[in-house]
Amino acid sequence: VNHSFVHLLQDILPADALLTSPAECLVYGYDNSRRQAMPEAVALVETEQQVIDIVRLCYTRNIALTARGRGTGTTGATVPTHGGIVLSFERMNKILRIDADNRVMVVQPGVTNQQVQDAAAQHGFFWAPDPTSAAYCTVGGNLAYNSAGPRAIKYGSCRENTLGLRAVTGEGDVIKCGVYTTKGVVGYDLTRLIIGSEGTLAIITEATLKLIPKAETKRTFMAVYNSMDAAARAVSHIMAQAITPCALEFMDENAINMVREYAASNSHTNLPQQAGALLMIEVDGSHAHIDAEIQSVDAAARVAGHIATHHAITRQEIDALWQTRKALSPCLRKIAPKKINEDIVVPVSRMAELINELNRLSAHYQIPIVNFGHAGNGNIHVNLLVNPDDPAAMHSAEKCLEAVFDLVISLNGTLSGEHGVGLEKRDFIYKELSANEIKIMKAIKQQFDPHNILNRDKTLPL
Amino acid sequence: VNHSFVHLLQDILPADALLTSPAECLVYGYDNSRRQAMPEAVALVETEQQVIDIVRLCYTRNIALTARGRGTGTTGATVPTHGGIVLSFERMNKILRIDADNRVMVVQPGVTNQQVQDAAAQHGFFWAPDPTSAAYCTVGGNLAYNSAGPRAIKYGSCRENTLGLRAVTGEGDVIKCGVYTTKGVVGYDLTRLIIGSEGTLAIITEATLKLIPKAETKRTFMAVYNSMDAAARAVSHIMAQAITPCALEFMDENAINMVREYAASNSHTNLPQQAGALLMIEVDGSHAHIDAEIQSVDAAARVAGHIATHHAITRQEIDALWQTRKALSPCLRKIAPKKINEDIVVPVSRMAELINELNRLSAHYQIPIVNFGHAGNGNIHVNLLVNPDDPAAMHSAEKCLEAVFDLVISLNGTLSGEHGVGLEKRDFIYKELSANEIKIMKAIKQQFDPHNILNRDKTLPL
Repeated sequence: VNHSFVHLLQDILPADALLTSPAECLVYGYDNSRRQAMPEAVALVETEQQVIDIVRLCYTRNIALTARGRGTGTTGATVPTHGGIVLSFERMNKILRIDADNRVMVVQPGVTNQQVQDAAAQHGFFWAPDPTSAAYCTVGGNLAYNSAGPRAIKYGSCRENTLGLRAVTGEGDVIKCGVYTTKGVVGYDLTRLIIGSEGTLAIITEATLKLIPKAETKRTFMAVYNSMDAAARAVSHIMAQAITPCALEFMDENAINMVREYAASNSHTNLPQQAGALLMIEVDGSHAHIDAEIQSVDAAARVAGHIATHHAITRQEIDALWQTRKALSPCLRKIAPKKINEDIVVPVSRMAELINELNRLSAHYQIPIVNFGHAGNGNIHVNLLVNPDDPAAMHSAEKCLEAVFDLVISLNGTLSGEHGVGLEKRDFIYKELSANEIKIMKAIKQQFDPHNILNRDKTLPL
Repeated sequence: VNHSFVHLLQDILPADALLTSPAECLVYGYDNSRRQAMPEAVALVETEQQVIDIVRLCYTRNIALTARGRGTGTTGATVPTHGGIVLSFERMNKILRIDADNRVMVVQPGVTNQQVQDAAAQHGFFWAPDPTSAAYCTVGGNLAYNSAGPRAIKYGSCRENTLGLRAVTGEGDVIKCGVYTTKGVVGYDLTRLIIGSEGTLAIITEATLKLIPKAETKRTFMAVYNSMDAAARAVSHIMAQAITPCALEFMDENAINMVREYAASNSHTNLPQQAGALLMIEVDGSHAHIDAEIQSVDAAARVAGHIATHHAITRQEIDALWQTRKALSPCLRKIAPKKINEDIVVPVSRMAELINELNRLSAHYQIPIVNFGHAGNGNIHVNLLVNPDDPAAMHSAEKCLEAVFDLVISLNGTLSGEHGVGLEKRDFIYKELSANEIKIMKAIKQQFDPHNILNRDKTLPL
């Protein structure tokens, strides 16, 4: 990126939309992976035409281009490791249309997940993806990663809740993918191909989101088990009956012990001493049916090894119930501020086996491992409590992590359920994908982005 | 396909698995589109390795290869227009695994949809896609077309209900797509790319299906309206509340009149003379909640213009209620045995506009048009009642059809909701997809099938 290139960018963008000073560029160079790289310029785009013009400029000059929302991703996918230009969508953040009759919202990629939820709520709807970072993260970022959250168990991820996209390929071509309706089978499914491709195939400039009617009410309960085996059996039982919860989260024994040891005393008043795992379960529905529904799920949760169940109805009771779970993150931050957090997935029926094996690996590598996550999807956040500034510990952690990934694959699981690949897992995905799959994925990348400017070297192995 | 090629096929297949006589090949040359072409040989494959070997043989000799289920498709996608080899999956029809704890079934592509439903039902589950041809059609065909049916309104199509695939590309490479779990974001989404690609990208050899718990019970009612406008408003109302029906079918005035005129008298005892449209609505759920749920939906269906509602509970009452709808197909066959049946989709809120415009086109082109279909998805079966053996009528019909497609696109709809493109709509999809989309789709096809042997000249424009 030299002076003449900056001049060409200035022709495309208004004066205040092009950042080139290192101080300004700095904050566009990192994400929640704690990786960092310096972009040479940042373009605060406002229109699809600007995106097209910048893509064309970049590929004619072989300049790397990294699209970015708010940098809440955890895998480094938005870190501009090749310098070049960062495209930030913070100004391209409009809700273009809310069409309640058709349950559709059309948005620009820079809108935050929370803004979408707020606007949908005014019409009695919501959009299913609910990452923890909803208040900050953008829809563009959600789509790039195929983000999810607790609600995915009942309502799915971005792929199931996005009808169509507009996007700009690495050749500067605008493509209109998908439909405005809930069915459509004309041509190949480019919508789902681009969702989850982490900005490597095309830059999303507009999304048509599928909205879902908000349930009238929600009930929460906590079920405590004497072992992870019992909790995993309960999850299978719950998932085999007809009422699907809208959240089915779990904490393992290590997570429970950590809260008991480090958190304020009121966080674990509900936890009997022999608690080996717990489930937090939410069911949503209408006022008329919710009591009967929660009873069905509660009954399914009472398997052998079940110790106690606590129900919550009022806001206050619900908050009290979530205290154990909410105390966990501050505890983890206190003990291991730079913990390694993976988000692997295994079949629900293999969760207990996974946790048992993780405990074995923990002992073998002398690394505390704490597990919690979205039990209904078998999507487990595996936290290795190590200090990355300690080289010996990190060496062990790397070996342990590799063993964790091998374990996951041996259980018919996947390396990531919602955080994605980015840079963090790029060099491990050969464990899950064969050379044939990687070959065809690279060939697809080459068609969308023949000049290899879009998020270079991310997602697929080198 | 010459003698030496047949010898090479004989090395791959058991003696009784290779058909070469015209009499035997004939039945593998047509589908429900009434198009026909003669394959030069038919391979009744039993293993993935045979598929690989045949693909390799075909591409080294530039022989066209068409994969096929049971030929229930309506768009000609399985008609071997380039001769060559037809791969029939009738012998590769095993259910490989039913994993109730994880709500998963693994099947070979030749299993019928009904066999999957029956096997799932034994564990209290079902697979969502429910095409009318369920008793005959195969899962491989369902996936190739991204088939759906009435249940799609609540439970989605193949794309939302398939976790992973194994498939053989046009280069003979086996690719393993997707996951065994309900979440997974490693690499590009090849699963949904192959689903709906009509056998043009890869040949599916195994599918991992997502099962859903069967509801305990179901209730049915019919709501009658004085106009299509009123019925369409009711559909929007129903879709805006939280209880989603598991079927929401409609018939327009022309369809109702046809039943009234041509069907046995007991088919329309429930139909008042001023009926301008009707909805058939089914809600599934548990015994405990179903009454309250059906009441919510019924209340939402009572918009201005609503004339009457008839509820059914017993099997006998339900059958009686469906009689009007079921009488329609025999009536249509009687009046226009070779009718043109399209399956376009428009946003639910535009359905009334569409039907009104279709009536205008019907008058203009002097072609009776009868409409019914899956109202909850805006997926409408538009039937042009013409005799294809009458050249003048067919000329009008072609012009009318083109106007129908233009109308659908102008209403932000799509040319097909579940029947697909095949040969029937291939030359119209430029109305929906731009040159940029077609360019990238062709580029993707070229990567999967560089020798262009897989279902040549289907799905994408020439």
